[in-house]
Amino acid sequence: MKIYDISMTIHETMTVYKNKPEKKPKITNRSNFQTAQAYESTITMDMHTGTHIDAPLHMIEGGETMSLYSIERFVVKAKVLDLTHIEEAINQKDLEAFDIQENDFILFKTRNSSVEVFDFNFVYLEKSGAKFLVDRKIQGVGIDALGIERNQPNHETHKLLLGNQIMIVEGLRLKDVPEGEYTLIVLPLKILETEAAPARAILIQQDIM
Amino acid sequence: MKIYDISMTIHETMTVYKNKPEKKPKITNRSNFQTAQAYESTITMDMHTGTHIDAPLHMIEGGETMSLYSIERFVVKAKVLDLTHIEEAINQKDLEAFDIQENDFILFKTRNSSVEVFDFNFVYLEKSGAKFLVDRKIQGVGIDALGIERNQPNHETHKLLLGNQIMIVEGLRLKDVPEGEYTLIVLPLKILETEAAPARAILIQQDIM
Repeated sequence: MKIYDISMTIHETMTVYKNKPEKKPKITNRSNFQTAQAYESTITMDMHTGTHIDAPLHMIEGGETMSLYSIERFVVKAKVLDLTHIEEAINQKDLEAFDIQENDFILFKTRNSSVEVFDFNFVYLEKSGAKFLVDRKIQGVGIDALGIERNQPNHETHKLLLGNQIMIVEGLRLKDVPEGEYTLIVLPLKILETEAAPARAILIQQDIM
Repeated sequence: MKIYDISMTIHETMTVYKNKPEKKPKITNRSNFQTAQAYESTITMDMHTGTHIDAPLHMIEGGETMSLYSIERFVVKAKVLDLTHIEEAINQKDLEAFDIQENDFILFKTRNSSVEVFDFNFVYLEKSGAKFLVDRKIQGVGIDALGIERNQPNHETHKLLLGNQIMIVEGLRLKDVPEGEYTLIVLPLKILETEAAPARAILIQQDIM
C-alpha cells in the first residue's frame, strides 16, 4: 500500500503565510535529562501554520467552527488535478476541463508544490473557480499553498466555499503525487471550537471505501 | 464504513496528566471581525496533552525523535483488547490470555475509558507486560490513559517499549469500541524533531490493507 505524506513539516523556520513572524511555530523544551527523568516539549502555533483545515468562522462572522465537520469527512475519496501549467490563478475554465462531480474532494496540484519559500504570487483559486465548485456541490477542496486565495479584497473564494460548508485544506505538498484518484485522510487535531485546526494529511493509492 | 474517533477533545479545561497547569492548552484569538477580516487563533500545547505519540527521546537520553517513525507506521492493523476487568495494572499474565503476534499493534481498552477526570490510580502497563510485548516484537501499543505507566521510579515500561522502537500512543478514548480487529490511523502533526507529537486517532471497522 503506497502512502504519500502530503503535509508540511512543522519547525521553527518553516515557511509561513507572508512570512509573518506570528505564524512561525515556537517549540520549547520544558524538561530534559539534565534536570528530570523525561524530555518534554511545548509548541505554540497558529491554527493556519502548515497543513491545516479551515472552518467557516475563519472568514464568516458567526460561522461554524471545526465542530461542523463529522469524522467521516476526514476519510474520503479525492481527485488530484494536475494544474502545474497555471501561472496565476485557477478559474472556472481551467476546472471545466476535468470530471468534477457532486460530493467530490478536489486537490489542486500546482507549481506551488515545487516552491519551498513563501511565494507572494502563489497560484490560487479565483472566485469563478470557487463558484464553479460550489455549483458542482463538491464536499472539499485542497491546495498546495498556505492560502486558497490572494488579492481578493472581499475574500470571495473563502466565503463561497465556506458559506456552502465545503471543507478547505491548505498547505498541502503534492510535488511527488501523480494526477489521479486516491483515498485522502486528513486528520486535524481534535480542537472543535476554533476557526481552523492543524492537520496531518496523507494520500493512499487505493480506494479503501 | 464505520469510523470511531478515539481521540481526546482539546480545549482549555480538558483533563491533563496529574492536572498539571502547564499541560493545559491555551487557545488565543489573535484576529477577529471587530478588527480585521478574518478570525485567527493560536494554540499553545504540551506535546503530551491529549492523544499523542511518544518517541524514544521522551524517556531515553539521546533517543530518537518523532522522525523515527515512517509514515507507514501510522496506518496499521490493530487489535483492541478488552481489559476493563483490570483494576490496577496490566501484567504479563493478563496479556498471555490474548493472541498477540509479531508486528501487531495492540490497543488497551481499560476502565480508564469510562473516567473523564484525571484518575491518579489509572490502569497502566506494568513492566512484566511491557517485557512480554517486547518479546513478542509488536510494533506499537496504545492505551486509554495519559500515561502508559505510573508508580515505576525507573520508568521501565516506557524504556522497554521505546528502547525497542515500539511506538506508544497515549490518551486514547475507547469506551465505545468493542474488542476486535480494526485499521488504526493515528496521524501526529508532522513535528519531526521532538520527543512526542499530538495526534488524531481513528479506528476503521474494516481491513483496508
